[in-house]
Amino acid sequence: MVDKTVDHYRVEPGMAVDLSRWDPDDRSVFSGSKAEGKARTKALNRRLEALQELLYAEGKHKVLIVLQAMDTGGKDGTIRHVFDGVNPQGVRVAAFKVPTPEELRHDYLWRVHKHTPGSGEIVIFNRSHYEDVLVVRVHNLVPPEVWQRRYEHIRQFEKLLADEGTTILKFFLHISPEEQKERLQARLDTPHKRWKFNKGDLAERKRWDEYMQAYADAIRETSISYAPWYIVPANRKWYRNLVVSQVIVDALEALDMRYPEAEPGLESITIE
Amino acid sequence: MVDKTVDHYRVEPGMAVDLSRWDPDDRSVFSGSKAEGKARTKALNRRLEALQELLYAEGKHKVLIVLQAMDTGGKDGTIRHVFDGVNPQGVRVAAFKVPTPEELRHDYLWRVHKHTPGSGEIVIFNRSHYEDVLVVRVHNLVPPEVWQRRYEHIRQFEKLLADEGTTILKFFLHISPEEQKERLQARLDTPHKRWKFNKGDLAERKRWDEYMQAYADAIRETSISYAPWYIVPANRKWYRNLVVSQVIVDALEALDMRYPEAEPGLESITIE
Repeated sequence: MVDKTVDHYRVEPGMAVDLSRWDPDDRSVFSGSKAEGKARTKALNRRLEALQELLYAEGKHKVLIVLQAMDTGGKDGTIRHVFDGVNPQGVRVAAFKVPTPEELRHDYLWRVHKHTPGSGEIVIFNRSHYEDVLVVRVHNLVPPEVWQRRYEHIRQFEKLLADEGTTILKFFLHISPEEQKERLQARLDTPHKRWKFNKGDLAERKRWDEYMQAYADAIRETSISYAPWYIVPANRKWYRNLVVSQVIVDALEALDMRYPEAEPGLESITIE
Repeated sequence: MVDKTVDHYRVEPGMAVDLSRWDPDDRSVFSGSKAEGKARTKALNRRLEALQELLYAEGKHKVLIVLQAMDTGGKDGTIRHVFDGVNPQGVRVAAFKVPTPEELRHDYLWRVHKHTPGSGEIVIFNRSHYEDVLVVRVHNLVPPEVWQRRYEHIRQFEKLLADEGTTILKFFLHISPEEQKERLQARLDTPHKRWKFNKGDLAERKRWDEYMQAYADAIRETSISYAPWYIVPANRKWYRNLVVSQVIVDALEALDMRYPEAEPGLESITIE
């Protein structure tokens, strides 16, 4: 059996999205063992290091990576593993938490636009503007007509970024509620993980189905050729890292980057 | 003869725009004398002071005012006169000059979005994102397909701002090339105005017709109900100030603002 490519997880524009039909345990793009999977991810990581260096040197393209997931879905772990060893000069993480009073006085893309990547830069959004059609919707923080029109704002905002030179990759790290249960319990039971536990997570967990609906709608409404969503099976951490790494490396390879030309005549210089 | 209202200068969506047919000396909304016009503007200014205080206290609406004009068109003078005496707490001017290297590494709306008003605030853009379809076009700084798609970006960006609570008013201060000639000469001849003169202005002046075409296209493409353009006859400074003041006051009146409710029972308190 031949493994599928990671395109298998990309949501094509207009595709209906029913998350109950996306298996968080799926592993159809890699049939090897966990150890083999980790080795593959390691190799991809080395390749990512080289590609990021080239991206930075060339200074032409911008790369935006959006990570979304339910609590314990693995956003932090993905960042740590996928970008392990990649030069922090040129890679930046922007984490979007509960908006500050100043942020709330502006439109919801105001705080997000500020953190978009510049030329030669990779920016990873740990949560993002999608919270404004997810948590905001589930908790009725604004009326339906307000969050519904945001899909169009978001499509147009990402179109602007793409038109002006940004490669956008969006990942939903998809875990099952059973997997979340185990991970939350582990946070409670492991002293050095306990700081990550938050009683509010339990209230959110009760709204699982509402969140799945909100995610499904947001992904369907905003997965477009210039800013595709990938639904990544994330019950297995090693597999999740492999898939995310592969998608990013493939996208950077496709940019066909080159090191800038050096000044002519440098090859005859000897430093004395 | 009854004077027209300032709506006369609003560009309706879809309207063809030929700037040679908009008279920079027109004064059909005010048939009084210059002294009477100045008195009217003074009264509007007082009203603006009160409305801005209310806007700030209520803290609900955001107001964005965009000023564009050819050199010497009167952007600085308009700001000084229209907002004379208005409380600077709650009013901010953002001037957009030649982009910095950091700004150039991002999309052209990145630096602009940062400066959009928060709730309760009025922000005046002295030049704006429109330069990215004006000077950028006239000087061929990007290929036509790049600036042409920006009209849609700008429409969508302003739609986002409007949907999220921003009142947007855009003014093109329209002077004739003869008036510009006199004003440039006055800058050269008046010692305390000489600092404003820039030899580059003469090169820009030679491209007058190209600029008029770029302005006409930009105004036609982006004058929409939620973000209208006003073409203001600006050869007479007092008349220009009158028209801009009237448009802003009318728009603020239409917001139907109220002071926040005070805590109940305050009327029976005596400070000892």
